Amino acid sequence: MVRLMTAKVRLYVDDPLGAGQPVALAREQAHYLFSVMRLPVGAPVALFNGRDGEWLAEVAEAGKRGGTLTCVEQTRPQGTPPDLWLLFAPIKKARTDFIVEKAVELGVRRIVPVQTAFTNSERIRQDRLQAHAVEAAEQCGATFVPEVAELQKLDRLMAEWADRRLLFCDEASAGGGTDYVALLAGDPAPWAVLIGPEGGFSDQERTRLHGMEQATAIALGPRILRADTAAVAALTLWQAHCGDWA
Amino acid sequence: MVRLMTAKVRLYVDDPLGAGQPVALAREQAHYLFSVMRLPVGAPVALFNGRDGEWLAEVAEAGKRGGTLTCVEQTRPQGTPPDLWLLFAPIKKARTDFIVEKAVELGVRRIVPVQTAFTNSERIRQDRLQAHAVEAAEQCGATFVPEVAELQKLDRLMAEWADRRLLFCDEASAGGGTDYVALLAGDPAPWAVLIGPEGGFSDQERTRLHGMEQATAIALGPRILRADTAAVAALTLWQAHCGDWA
Repeated sequence: MVRLMTAKVRLYVDDPLGAGQPVALAREQAHYLFSVMRLPVGAPVALFNGRDGEWLAEVAEAGKRGGTLTCVEQTRPQGTPPDLWLLFAPIKKARTDFIVEKAVELGVRRIVPVQTAFTNSERIRQDRLQAHAVEAAEQCGATFVPEVAELQKLDRLMAEWADRRLLFCDEASAGGGTDYVALLAGDPAPWAVLIGPEGGFSDQERTRLHGMEQATAIALGPRILRADTAAVAALTLWQAHCGDWA
Repeated sequence: MVRLMTAKVRLYVDDPLGAGQPVALAREQAHYLFSVMRLPVGAPVALFNGRDGEWLAEVAEAGKRGGTLTCVEQTRPQGTPPDLWLLFAPIKKARTDFIVEKAVELGVRRIVPVQTAFTNSERIRQDRLQAHAVEAAEQCGATFVPEVAELQKLDRLMAEWADRRLLFCDEASAGGGTDYVALLAGDPAPWAVLIGPEGGFSDQERTRLHGMEQATAIALGPRILRADTAAVAALTLWQAHCGDWA
């Protein structure tokens, strides 16, 4: 098969993907492919659904309100990240979007916004954050999209916590001298990384976290990091020593 | 001395700081302190200049076009980060600003925007990026502000490179199985981290970098990272194993 063109568009879809499989487009997707990107019939499109890897598909039918793609061949196998969750206290919109984008790139299974004692937000737009995760995966070439959960209260989460290991970043323990290898390496059980709000955890939360058998406190150097920086740094260190970068 | 108030404003200044030292305010700073923040005479302000640590000062004179602060006492010692440079290819404005902000938080001595074969920008606003670095330091509590250099061509920089170690992130070597401790630990000589543009390095640049005795290539996991994510991840790994987090 001669294939001179490579896909300019990469799209997340819900449908199963497999050789010859037709994929019906939603109105919005058809608008993007045919009105914005002006793809003709026969044009290549990269597809992924979070389960079946990445597929090359071709435009079979192009309409203003819909259309169909046909899967041709798998171009990349499914790459599911390690069983890592990111729990974070939502902050300003742009920085919350940023945390979701970075979590998708660095590789997590699930993103859980948590309400802590010092969290300002009492609600989040879960659908908007989930759409942002999809867009981040489309752009960074990921084949997996983490689920973004609804906002949950940290104290309730802690009360119901099972045996998943929990890595939390404690501003109060800021400083050098951390042996990240000793803290992280060699324990590949399911993990979660927890990032507190800009104001830090409350004394009560901190005491409770330090008392949890599953929890490991980590310091991220002698300078104060913003919550979004701390999220990227902690996910990086976990991936480098416990995850699929190692 | 009884001091009930803590400073609500943290300001970078050029002047030397020391007990009893007066600090004259520029018009813009006076406007911010007295018209925006409405600080009265006697109000506390936190000051740093990148050399003398953080000082508590008090408003001595407040005017519309100027004013004076008087240093009272040092509140934090000078914290200068390790001798690490960040070299990066400028990308879109918001993400370039982000890289500068994160480099200040994570701790670098110098930020060098570089023009590579695949860099789109042919110029940067050095003054704007330097101001952004100052603002990031004011907000994250750093006592040091890295110098932001003018845009430099990567091939010229490489031709004149001295014995500083160079850590570069090579998309082509993406994958798992990296032993970051073996790559980074135990060599505290001056370092630089180099992040390529979104399009990666050219073949010529890659060959030249791999041929440099001072250079170490690093992979950042099996997923493709944006340039801004790669910058934060690489600086984190360096700080955790070679810098002042370890």
